[in-house]
Amino acid sequence: MTQTVTEFEVHDIRFPTSQQLDGSDAMNPDPDYSAAYVVIRARDGAEGHGFCFTIGRGNDVTAAAIEALRPYVVGRPAPRTAADLAALHTALTHDSQLRWLGPEKGVTHMAAGAVVNAAWDLAARSAGLPVWEFLAAMTPEDLVSLVDFRYLTDVLTRDEALAILRTAEPGRIERARRLREDGYPAYTTSPGWLGYSDEKLVRLARQAVADGFAQIKLKVGGDLDDDVRRMGLVRAAVGPGVRIAVDANQRWDVAEAVRWMTELAPYEPHWIEEPTSPDDILGHAAVRAGQPVKVATGEHAANRVVFKQLLQAGAVDFVQIDAARVAGVNENLAILLLAAKYRVPVCPHAGGVGLCELVQHLAMFDFVAVSGSWEDRVIEYVDHLHEHFADPAVISRGRYRAPHAPGFSARMLPESIAAHRYPEGPVWRARLRTAEGITP
Amino acid sequence: MTQTVTEFEVHDIRFPTSQQLDGSDAMNPDPDYSAAYVVIRARDGAEGHGFCFTIGRGNDVTAAAIEALRPYVVGRPAPRTAADLAALHTALTHDSQLRWLGPEKGVTHMAAGAVVNAAWDLAARSAGLPVWEFLAAMTPEDLVSLVDFRYLTDVLTRDEALAILRTAEPGRIERARRLREDGYPAYTTSPGWLGYSDEKLVRLARQAVADGFAQIKLKVGGDLDDDVRRMGLVRAAVGPGVRIAVDANQRWDVAEAVRWMTELAPYEPHWIEEPTSPDDILGHAAVRAGQPVKVATGEHAANRVVFKQLLQAGAVDFVQIDAARVAGVNENLAILLLAAKYRVPVCPHAGGVGLCELVQHLAMFDFVAVSGSWEDRVIEYVDHLHEHFADPAVISRGRYRAPHAPGFSARMLPESIAAHRYPEGPVWRARLRTAEGITP
Repeated sequence: MTQTVTEFEVHDIRFPTSQQLDGSDAMNPDPDYSAAYVVIRARDGAEGHGFCFTIGRGNDVTAAAIEALRPYVVGRPAPRTAADLAALHTALTHDSQLRWLGPEKGVTHMAAGAVVNAAWDLAARSAGLPVWEFLAAMTPEDLVSLVDFRYLTDVLTRDEALAILRTAEPGRIERARRLREDGYPAYTTSPGWLGYSDEKLVRLARQAVADGFAQIKLKVGGDLDDDVRRMGLVRAAVGPGVRIAVDANQRWDVAEAVRWMTELAPYEPHWIEEPTSPDDILGHAAVRAGQPVKVATGEHAANRVVFKQLLQAGAVDFVQIDAARVAGVNENLAILLLAAKYRVPVCPHAGGVGLCELVQHLAMFDFVAVSGSWEDRVIEYVDHLHEHFADPAVISRGRYRAPHAPGFSARMLPESIAAHRYPEGPVWRARLRTAEGITP
Repeated sequence: MTQTVTEFEVHDIRFPTSQQLDGSDAMNPDPDYSAAYVVIRARDGAEGHGFCFTIGRGNDVTAAAIEALRPYVVGRPAPRTAADLAALHTALTHDSQLRWLGPEKGVTHMAAGAVVNAAWDLAARSAGLPVWEFLAAMTPEDLVSLVDFRYLTDVLTRDEALAILRTAEPGRIERARRLREDGYPAYTTSPGWLGYSDEKLVRLARQAVADGFAQIKLKVGGDLDDDVRRMGLVRAAVGPGVRIAVDANQRWDVAEAVRWMTELAPYEPHWIEEPTSPDDILGHAAVRAGQPVKVATGEHAANRVVFKQLLQAGAVDFVQIDAARVAGVNENLAILLLAAKYRVPVCPHAGGVGLCELVQHLAMFDFVAVSGSWEDRVIEYVDHLHEHFADPAVISRGRYRAPHAPGFSARMLPESIAAHRYPEGPVWRARLRTAEGITP
């Protein structure tokens, strides 16, 4: 029997991470990892949880954007099927008045993604499956029905997408079995934050390799001499066999990126991530052409139209999807299909709060049912804030274990939500009192 | 003496325009023209007014995004000089935490634009000049100090921008004089809304020509047969000497745009505006290459990086700046300089509520001090909602008269603000009661 959605809760949740310099990079010196968090609840008690990840200020604006989507969810049937999830995605991204605020970008698009992902959490849980298996159990026809092909058809039509999915169909069961046994390759960014000392950097890099990671990542872009020294130290510490990716977090213009990466190239960086503006497709192509290191981007790419062009222009060697910036599972499915068409590996962005939890499902589904490969593919892992989740991502010997709990692994513990509500939760009440000069 | 900003008011103002089908197009069938409106006020009573234009739902989200910028304005000196306006623009667009929500796109970027423009209104008024003259009185050095060249230097450096401005310097006084005498060329979209009958369309098109407009614009993209018929009717009504632009409001994919415009080409459309996604730089280039009609876009281009690429890729024949989508006067100055470098004419988007009032200043400044030309340039004009402004745009014989009142012409009348506040203003209270089934 179809159940109606009766509740739609929105929470502004923030973690005071800026105090440790965890997450510090060339553009984001002091992030407070945050989530604009939404819970949808059906009359029968079935729940779906989703969120936008932000880094502090403005999390309230994102929460307001989620709140604006309430009328598309409350009083309507709780989504359970591919058809329901396609219809909800369309409703949330095609409201003609809200569309003006993007279109399909920024705060309103992230909000649509949070609600779409909450619906996937609810639907997968109702089916008793983790999202990656729920997706991998759908037919190619159902999967393409989830995708908005508007603005994509010059590069990818519905029929081409169907063909990609049908090609991957025969091996699905075997790949799902391997995933359950071996897990999915990961890399870690935990050693490389810009705010860390050389000693801490080297110690954490060695530790990461000892923990089984074959790839680590360093933040760069603050100061060239520092970056050369840090890269040299880490290369010496881990040896030639470990991949070291570097990440500039949009710090450079084109010529600067080329100059900087030419200097770092002798240490053999595996990729340069976000060398410049995430909107600059032609800039990324110029950076890729102008120096020897491979180019990765995507965590800030606004939507499938930007990804389409990055691939068209030959601007990227790795596509870094983000689970909580575009319009949820549906739009990420479009991006996985685009990457598969161009045979460019997808290496998801994670970290933040809850991004590892979400994005592992998309990478695993990609392996099982889209690209059919994990060659040259790795999911980012950062050892942050997992303790706040009911079904945290599990890493073992440098690989994500395949989640088996039903849903999207997105649920934050009720006590974590209560403690970190901004500004009224106890974690913040104490801090804000201190900031006002009142001894707590 | 420097005065501190002490007040920062934000209003959610909406006009129920959907009831007349004014403003109806292929993507926006029922807009309620709206403004998230901000007033900044210094201790001495000096005021600056600015706003984001939206089309209804979500105007509250935009107002929340403006509200998030309060700490960058209140308690700080009221901006009066180029240096003040440069510093404010940087502060509003480079907050490392808020930046995550874009970067530089969508709701948060539009909000930054509203506050930047309010600051320009205040500064120009303090100087006793309309914004176009306030800008045109600045030195080339002051003007380039207002621009954020990050992500632009592969195409436009500070030195190149200075050279462009210096080249235009000698003729400034003469061109300002011509502007005050003759006004600036306009075109009108008032006849061509998609919701209008053929009879109304033809009558209004004839009227526009009789009123002195040498260019009109039709909305297209709903149905090809309808568009061919409407275009034929209007071409027959106005004759071969009047330019007819058409506007698809992002309705098409690339192949559809090419097919549609090939059909309309015999009626000699002056340009096709927004044929596809505003994010699709390569798509616009393909549309331009694939059919004979010139391509215009920009009202939804998110920021200067997108405009840079549209020009780099040879994707546009006309650059359509919008006064209230990017980060205010400062970012529009960057876009004017980019267009001048490529010698592509700027034909601003207007209409909505208050957009004609704002953007006339930018086009006039472009003529006086940047491009130095009005050849092939026109500002859009729509005869909507001007009665709500204290210094409304004035059109005479198809040309915008040069504004002479100090400021940015952005001030809505207090009684208009009071009446149209959403949802509590009397205009809405009555409508919302009726919608709930309560007879007013």
